[in-house]
Amino acid sequence: MGLIRSWVESANAAECLFPLNNLPCGVFSTGESAPRCGVAIGDFVLDVAGLEAAGLLELDGGPLLDVPFWNEVMAAGPSVWAALRAQLQLILGEDADEHVRDECRFFMYELADVALHMPFRVSEYTDFYAGRNHAFNVGTMFRGPENALPPNWLHMPIGYNGRASSVVVSGSDVRRPWGQVKAPDQALPVFQPSRRFDIELELGAVVGMASEGPVTVAEAEAMIFGYVLLNDWSARDIQAWEYQPLGPFQAKATATTISPWIVMTAALEPFRTPTPARELPLLPHLQEPRPMLYDIALEVGLAPEGGPETIIARTNAAELYYSAPQQLAHHTTSGCAMNTGDLLGSGTISGPTKDSRGSLLELSWGGKEPFAIAGGSRSFIEDHDTLTLRGQCQGAGYTIGFGECTGKVLPALADPYAR
Amino acid sequence: MGLIRSWVESANAAECLFPLNNLPCGVFSTGESAPRCGVAIGDFVLDVAGLEAAGLLELDGGPLLDVPFWNEVMAAGPSVWAALRAQLQLILGEDADEHVRDECRFFMYELADVALHMPFRVSEYTDFYAGRNHAFNVGTMFRGPENALPPNWLHMPIGYNGRASSVVVSGSDVRRPWGQVKAPDQALPVFQPSRRFDIELELGAVVGMASEGPVTVAEAEAMIFGYVLLNDWSARDIQAWEYQPLGPFQAKATATTISPWIVMTAALEPFRTPTPARELPLLPHLQEPRPMLYDIALEVGLAPEGGPETIIARTNAAELYYSAPQQLAHHTTSGCAMNTGDLLGSGTISGPTKDSRGSLLELSWGGKEPFAIAGGSRSFIEDHDTLTLRGQCQGAGYTIGFGECTGKVLPALADPYAR
Repeated sequence: MGLIRSWVESANAAECLFPLNNLPCGVFSTGESAPRCGVAIGDFVLDVAGLEAAGLLELDGGPLLDVPFWNEVMAAGPSVWAALRAQLQLILGEDADEHVRDECRFFMYELADVALHMPFRVSEYTDFYAGRNHAFNVGTMFRGPENALPPNWLHMPIGYNGRASSVVVSGSDVRRPWGQVKAPDQALPVFQPSRRFDIELELGAVVGMASEGPVTVAEAEAMIFGYVLLNDWSARDIQAWEYQPLGPFQAKATATTISPWIVMTAALEPFRTPTPARELPLLPHLQEPRPMLYDIALEVGLAPEGGPETIIARTNAAELYYSAPQQLAHHTTSGCAMNTGDLLGSGTISGPTKDSRGSLLELSWGGKEPFAIAGGSRSFIEDHDTLTLRGQCQGAGYTIGFGECTGKVLPALADPYAR
Repeated sequence: MGLIRSWVESANAAECLFPLNNLPCGVFSTGESAPRCGVAIGDFVLDVAGLEAAGLLELDGGPLLDVPFWNEVMAAGPSVWAALRAQLQLILGEDADEHVRDECRFFMYELADVALHMPFRVSEYTDFYAGRNHAFNVGTMFRGPENALPPNWLHMPIGYNGRASSVVVSGSDVRRPWGQVKAPDQALPVFQPSRRFDIELELGAVVGMASEGPVTVAEAEAMIFGYVLLNDWSARDIQAWEYQPLGPFQAKATATTISPWIVMTAALEPFRTPTPARELPLLPHLQEPRPMLYDIALEVGLAPEGGPETIIARTNAAELYYSAPQQLAHHTTSGCAMNTGDLLGSGTISGPTKDSRGSLLELSWGGKEPFAIAGGSRSFIEDHDTLTLRGQCQGAGYTIGFGECTGKVLPALADPYAR
């Protein structure tokens, strides 16, 4: 499938992230107006909440867009998701007549002029560890290459519950956290600002349909509404001291930034690709009935305050060992109920090469090998650095993009308890 | 302070769990009616939602009780919590005139006749590990007594994020989960029903007021609306295979049962008691400015299908090493936002003696020492067993109770994917 042409000319450019093939879901506001649901098309955002209110979009069970988040559409299921895309592709398609175009234009705003908000309400947030290279790299640093992968790693997608209240939209500043840390050569811990603050380059799966009880991998796939880019900010020094025996906690609770646009699974369909070859066979309930990863080129940029950005890593979502449907199926094995708005982070996506590692921990090999950026070097994030994730799928003559997932790190508070 | 006498005679009995001193918050329904907020008094539940609607209760910012959960009252803060108690103690007090009594009687239902529902909407659920004896027992089983406590344990309240969607109210049946397990002597894992299904006797703190950024222990205490009994059902065989390196996940996601009544902190005030002596000094931000535990006698009962109940453990909430305000303060150190409806499990509360252990894992020492119950013995839970937690504070001539926190374990599904 090639480009689906739109009468919105900017949407037809090969490098545009938001062609008619994409139609990602976000929440935007203009000036003093209240946030509302919108869809990106070319250089514009289309106010789909306004379209629905005006009767120009009709969704079963609607109105579903009269709230400033996509959860109601997400909960409505795949037939509504498909109907939404079909109607939008009709009214934005090059065959739309001038009357329809005029109606749409009334609900369009230049992307450059709008503010973007959280696209959905996060119910619960789970973070997986589904990248083989990342797990191997981190394990090697901590336990040596022979014991790098935990014994369970090749048998199931290991994950932990994160903190939904920490999830913020791209563009939100991130305050360097305080935390309890203890270096191996110290007798006692201290409470201080994190000195090893980091990113994790991840893909986030957004659960649309709720479930009760265990679901198969195929059922899990049908529950997923779409994907976001996700940066799981991580304080490595806090993590090292706290994570045994119950896993990461405060090290991961400062912030998790997501892209402002949810790319629906239908837009990713042409880029479906298999997981890497299994090194050990999976138990039947975790096997994929068909390819469930996506070929999404990913990159991480780091820009110091006032300085140019350096791309510090390039990799691909196809590097994941477990797909989101596998993660979600595993998540339900014990009977755990899943809800509309649950967010599943993939875990850090690293490639096999040094320049394809999705965290500074890996790029600087635990801080021992600082890496070069324009005009300097980095081991971990420094104050006022801006970190940006980008992701895109390359179609024949078109691109599917997520928009930037970016955040600037502010210095730690001088006294976190000053009032 | 002694008993506060009520004109509801059953509330004045020394052994009654719901005297006028208590006034715990629940959600109830009668017959076909919709669930609504109520407060327990003696043998009755008082329909406070109805009272507020009738203008007999007035809360700042109200109506706050026109929803079937306590979250709006919880979010309103300590002055509203105090006003609610003061008004109820007036209209239910022995000095209330006959007209007021008649108005109240119109809104009272016998406890024996009502169904109880989840008392609040759980935003996020965190489970701590704040019991010294439990951590020591489990650590001894896994690593020997020399390395029983993890190095960080005496320096901060270790915790992990649990799954809010798993929290259910007392009386809900619990289905034995399937999960991936691997015995040490097996080469490969298998997917099967849990054979080591267990309880954890815990106290749950219910967050009323939201926060952003780090809060002190004193501020944390003021945010807590009340406490519930909490049973963190745990599949030990699933846990053993999955928990490294990211902590418990599916082992804890089947169900977490809470008592139907939230006992407000004001009712627990007379039972305030200090944490045990610190074995190592805490960093300043985790120190308590005053005693913040409560003297709550706890017990666990186990009843096989059709058989009598055996009390398998008796302990006290004062055994905890870290109080809920300390847990909550630690939870916010990294800047983690807390919300109304967040639930903090204390971790298993075990006493120092064999008969005061709050989990079957400890009572049967990892299954190696089955313990006696009436007519049999147990290592872990068997199908159709009913497990019940109870808790009460003993005042001078009165009792503060939580009601039962109970659940019956149903057999695992024959095929969890059969549709």
